[in-house]
Amino acid sequence: MIFDTTAIAAMDKLQRVQFATTLPGPKPLCLVGTRSLAGRSNLAPFSSVTHLGSNPILIGMVTRPDTVERHTLRNILETQSWTLNHVTEEFVAQAHQCSARYPEETSEFEATGLTEHHHPSITAPFVLESPIRFALKLEEIIDITSNNTKLVVGRVCFVEIPDESYSPDGTVDISRSLASTALDTYFSIQEVSRLPYAKPAPPTP
Amino acid sequence: MIFDTTAIAAMDKLQRVQFATTLPGPKPLCLVGTRSLAGRSNLAPFSSVTHLGSNPILIGMVTRPDTVERHTLRNILETQSWTLNHVTEEFVAQAHQCSARYPEETSEFEATGLTEHHHPSITAPFVLESPIRFALKLEEIIDITSNNTKLVVGRVCFVEIPDESYSPDGTVDISRSLASTALDTYFSIQEVSRLPYAKPAPPTP
Repeated sequence: MIFDTTAIAAMDKLQRVQFATTLPGPKPLCLVGTRSLAGRSNLAPFSSVTHLGSNPILIGMVTRPDTVERHTLRNILETQSWTLNHVTEEFVAQAHQCSARYPEETSEFEATGLTEHHHPSITAPFVLESPIRFALKLEEIIDITSNNTKLVVGRVCFVEIPDESYSPDGTVDISRSLASTALDTYFSIQEVSRLPYAKPAPPTP
Repeated sequence: MIFDTTAIAAMDKLQRVQFATTLPGPKPLCLVGTRSLAGRSNLAPFSSVTHLGSNPILIGMVTRPDTVERHTLRNILETQSWTLNHVTEEFVAQAHQCSARYPEETSEFEATGLTEHHHPSITAPFVLESPIRFALKLEEIIDITSNNTKLVVGRVCFVEIPDESYSPDGTVDISRSLASTALDTYFSIQEVSRLPYAKPAPPTP
């Protein structure tokens, strides 16, 4: 089945959103925790979290100015702080519910029953139910002029994971973390292989 | 287990790379197909593919100038064309092998045995083994100044998927597509839920 530019343009709006958001495949799923200057907590699911660099550890995510994510962006601009919290099967329904357009005075923690967790050195709130959670400090915000979105770049300053999830080579066991696609579908993951660093094969003798 | 800025800085280089590239969680895995002006084909695995917008369909990916991805970026600059090809369990070892630093004159298709597939209207090559594959045209390249990486933004101009993978609401069945983390670990996915559009709950009467 082939879709060319004409067929893509002819889709209706919701159909094209569903199509477009499925194309990249399975994506990371994180709840982004932020806090406004006035002290209001906010939680929003993001699936655009991407590794940008390892020294320092930089991680990016994409926001659109015209969605529920607007509270997230405004809070980040106000406090330079946010957290990323992996989502597990146990609280996926609550994580999904955080995508609803709550009014500004409503905390998604209170609305969904997820537990707010604070660390004294970090402004933004963590999700206690999340086994893998970390905090970032704002590094830069980059305009993506093609469609008026923004890439928010942060430096990882704090990571909390279960002791048993960490291996001395730096690996974090993410097997309980969910992946997502489109804005509605969630997946558990199962390791099929871990492969050694690839080198070009030696020439056949 | 807690890692603060000091603990992160004290990690050795490979340990921190492993740690950093695991933190975002399960990521999309695509083989990026490109072709140089001279006609040489190139394939490289990317895990930074992100949806940016739906009308037109814009998709971004992050490249570093100092890695094997450099052939990819140069080819995109030369031809404005690339393909994204989902990876399945059947050819994950070959996909991983495409991350080796082959010399420029070597096509990863030839080196790994993956099958090059061409469509008359698209410059870049597709991977025949990939059930979900699509082509993009360069829209813009954005410098991420924090660490000298680049966000490559493309407009989807051609999509090819199996008939049975498409639903009339626009959903593409990606259940055979793998996710990845770090630069070495691959996961199959299993749907745990598909949830309706979230709305704030009505006030309790």
